[in-house]
Amino acid sequence: MKLYDLELSGNCYKVRLFAALAKIDLEIVPVDFLDGAHKREPVISLNPWGELPVLVDGEVILRDSQAILVYLARRYAGQAWWPEGAAQQGEVMQWLSVASNEVQHGPNAVRLVDKFGYEIDKPQAMRLTDRILGLLESHLSSHDWLALGRPTIADMAVFPYVALCHEGGVDLSPYQALDQWFNRIKGLDHYISMPGL
Amino acid sequence: MKLYDLELSGNCYKVRLFAALAKIDLEIVPVDFLDGAHKREPVISLNPWGELPVLVDGEVILRDSQAILVYLARRYAGQAWWPEGAAQQGEVMQWLSVASNEVQHGPNAVRLVDKFGYEIDKPQAMRLTDRILGLLESHLSSHDWLALGRPTIADMAVFPYVALCHEGGVDLSPYQALDQWFNRIKGLDHYISMPGL
Repeated sequence: MKLYDLELSGNCYKVRLFAALAKIDLEIVPVDFLDGAHKREPVISLNPWGELPVLVDGEVILRDSQAILVYLARRYAGQAWWPEGAAQQGEVMQWLSVASNEVQHGPNAVRLVDKFGYEIDKPQAMRLTDRILGLLESHLSSHDWLALGRPTIADMAVFPYVALCHEGGVDLSPYQALDQWFNRIKGLDHYISMPGL
Repeated sequence: MKLYDLELSGNCYKVRLFAALAKIDLEIVPVDFLDGAHKREPVISLNPWGELPVLVDGEVILRDSQAILVYLARRYAGQAWWPEGAAQQGEVMQWLSVASNEVQHGPNAVRLVDKFGYEIDKPQAMRLTDRILGLLESHLSSHDWLALGRPTIADMAVFPYVALCHEGGVDLSPYQALDQWFNRIKGLDHYISMPGL
């Protein structure tokens, strides 16, 4: 199973991290993002959206890091990380949406501006970041994990860009519950890191 | 089962639409959004994020329209709209992420500016809209439905704000495959509409 990967991408890292925790073997295929290799063959045929990561597992080809997490958890990791029940799936899914929406356009966006020079409205991204950090801090003040009282793909999806947003100029020091959650994740068996964490 | 609802919200409409198609009974509870009722009791305790829709089904309380679609489909609609298989869930999930990310910050955002006066960077939202409309048009030029070759919650999640974005000043007339997809959705048994469609 191949993961077309960029080491500095939080979206790629969340897949590498989850695979490590769930002991799923991945063959990492580094893609030269700065040279635009994700917009050329062979990657562009695998993902016409021109984004990373892309997972290829036999005939299954998936873009979107949240979709890849759902697929890997469902196929290779029993119900530990992605349950079968409707209410439980709904609870985890709330946070997969947060990863795709608020985290992508807040903490991820501010880092894209500062670290990679993206032309994004940074004040708008900072407002979204402040909001999501406050909501996460509030939730994590009374919960050890985002959903189901245990680590799930919800934590894997939200964690990377939140923990990386100091690279976008965000001061994370006021957020104590977030910091404790970071440490719980970093304390999981088989945890792996990435540059910036 | 109660849906705390705003008639003009595409996120609320996607839940009403899916429930209608899957013949799931919802008790609609209108929330006076313009008067800020979603930020006051009883709604704010149900959803501290201060957003609509919110679903309450016995002890299950869910925010986020994509999470609500997953819950309703999993609990009440067999595998027709949200399958059990890993590859199939991954395929649908790709589009639930698109609904949370690109659709929310493109087609939804331009409408929020024009119709409701939100202070959002409209040129940035227009660029995101152009990109997602092009990607959707390309995909739908060779697919009748977004995923699995049949209507799923993927279509329900993405459809509303894309079909509404003319209210944000977007000219949808160049997108013929999109228009045909709109018509396929509108032709489904038990389809219901909303203002602007």
